[in-house]
Amino acid sequence: MNFAGKHYRSIWMEKQTVFMVDQNVLPFEFKIFASYSCSDTCKAIIDMTTRGAGAIGVAAGFAMAQACMENGSLYTSHPEQYKSKIESARKQIESTRPTARNLFYATELVFASGIISPDSAYETAQWLAEQNLNDAIKIGEFGNTLIKNNARILTHCNAGWLAFVDYGSALSPIYVAQQQGKDVFVYVDETRPRLQGARLTAWELKNQGINHTLVPDNAAAYLMSKGLIDMVITGADRIAANADTANKIGTFEKAILAKEFGIPFYIAAPLSTFDMDIEDGNQIIIEERNADEVLYATGPDQLGAMHTIRLASEGITALNPAFDVTPATYISGIITEKGVILANRTSITGLFTKF
Amino acid sequence: MNFAGKHYRSIWMEKQTVFMVDQNVLPFEFKIFASYSCSDTCKAIIDMTTRGAGAIGVAAGFAMAQACMENGSLYTSHPEQYKSKIESARKQIESTRPTARNLFYATELVFASGIISPDSAYETAQWLAEQNLNDAIKIGEFGNTLIKNNARILTHCNAGWLAFVDYGSALSPIYVAQQQGKDVFVYVDETRPRLQGARLTAWELKNQGINHTLVPDNAAAYLMSKGLIDMVITGADRIAANADTANKIGTFEKAILAKEFGIPFYIAAPLSTFDMDIEDGNQIIIEERNADEVLYATGPDQLGAMHTIRLASEGITALNPAFDVTPATYISGIITEKGVILANRTSITGLFTKF
Repeated sequence: MNFAGKHYRSIWMEKQTVFMVDQNVLPFEFKIFASYSCSDTCKAIIDMTTRGAGAIGVAAGFAMAQACMENGSLYTSHPEQYKSKIESARKQIESTRPTARNLFYATELVFASGIISPDSAYETAQWLAEQNLNDAIKIGEFGNTLIKNNARILTHCNAGWLAFVDYGSALSPIYVAQQQGKDVFVYVDETRPRLQGARLTAWELKNQGINHTLVPDNAAAYLMSKGLIDMVITGADRIAANADTANKIGTFEKAILAKEFGIPFYIAAPLSTFDMDIEDGNQIIIEERNADEVLYATGPDQLGAMHTIRLASEGITALNPAFDVTPATYISGIITEKGVILANRTSITGLFTKF
Repeated sequence: MNFAGKHYRSIWMEKQTVFMVDQNVLPFEFKIFASYSCSDTCKAIIDMTTRGAGAIGVAAGFAMAQACMENGSLYTSHPEQYKSKIESARKQIESTRPTARNLFYATELVFASGIISPDSAYETAQWLAEQNLNDAIKIGEFGNTLIKNNARILTHCNAGWLAFVDYGSALSPIYVAQQQGKDVFVYVDETRPRLQGARLTAWELKNQGINHTLVPDNAAAYLMSKGLIDMVITGADRIAANADTANKIGTFEKAILAKEFGIPFYIAAPLSTFDMDIEDGNQIIIEERNADEVLYATGPDQLGAMHTIRLASEGITALNPAFDVTPATYISGIITEKGVILANRTSITGLFTKF
């Protein structure tokens, strides 16, 4: 995706360094964060310097490769110690954020290559990043077939360029629709508490020249009741074998509303987001994040000075579940890099046996 | 309601001055705003120094009385001029906020008394405030019968003490339940964009010692799917003759979710909120407020200095519908000062003919 006339991936690796667009300072500042170690990349995943299921997966793969390379001298001299070091690095990476399936998919693959050699780990991590990009493009092409000219689309959170290496999952079909000359209008849920819609999706759409407006999360039923929404597309953090889907908190609400108003509700995600070991959504672990994300907000004042302000009175507590699980019955279809499938066990099984 | 050991009404009038708890600076500061003229009271309604259907109604009645008293010298000398002055004041008051029925109920009654005399207008405005208080207490008593011990209640926006002269509508049953020794737990929707839940409801509940936690508006489906919500109670800004109900944006979403999960959804409102001239919700005018309420937030930093910060990037637009309309079919019952009624035309008609 382009920013200020230059093309950027949201995350990439050169030698032992992982570079990522710093998503905590966006949209107020565009900054590339460089992480020189596995442990710094883990921190960047935890504090959401990089975020979004796809980008988290790629970051985890890179972190795993960093761990292998950091212990490269042990690889020949003390192979058992090397293995134990990269095993514990894997545990560290896998403890950063529990919900995104892509993270575990990446650590599994890069760890397996890391056993062979640090070079092999590096190559696998880079391959995962390329795969992520190609998946996003394919998702865009398949998803685009669902978008009519002049469609008005509601999206929640950010599943765009920033959430992947490029293009995204939920936003990729919109970018492809634009490339093909379709007019689209996007209603962007601000997505409390972290405001990924307001800060990331709106910023991406503005940069790409796609018509959009920000709306409070509370406005979806109002917009739908007025006939202003033609379809909903969101991303996913983990999809169970029966198609139950974990995604950003609030997604389940939008899915229920869409069903109530007869509006198609699509999930866009690559196969690396599917977790065939999980039978249904009840088994998906939901990350609880710090209440401060609800109680405080950060942004620039009129002069551009950044402040963190308190939103409620002192002594108030808050709950902050980061995700919810939308049962398969609310999902009209899942847009993958292999095509658009129905949200059920049979279709998902078919998708995986096609390989 | 008590604050710092002293009892306050949220709004009251002494001679020609209207006093109100300044709801724009809460919960960071507790300040009484004094309005010395009809036109200042109108401004206070527009900028939401006072807010909430009940309080808006009382404020509008007081403003109408102020207008009559301000033109008191014309009352005997130039009765026609007096009438024309108070007519134009009525128009000014009625143009402040279009959605709350209580406002028009109050201007109608106080204007009619004002024709008789400024003193009569003052007495009627004071009577309306007393009626508002008594209605709130009755709503609390009737609503309390619906609350089981250990109930976990979701509420949206603020329909508490601050939204009425005292007690409130949606929160009044909770206060009565507490007085009767019941344990209750309240999940407080933060209620974007103006955060009335985070700023006002949480603050009220904290002052009253009622267990609660703040939740992002996005979390309701998650909480309901986990079996954590037993009932939903919200207030109302205008109820049509068929029971369709306008209330704070997001209310309709919660009502749809509650229905989906089989959770009772109650509206609490006095008869002055009902608009028998409006057949159904389609005719209710929805106020669109400034996009800046979505794009900016104000609060104190760590040292207590207040800042207004931008939440999205520059150039982003936002929609800000202040209310939505929940169709009657989603409402389990309406808690009024005359009892709890079913949400349908027959029950509402019965309520009004009982007078």
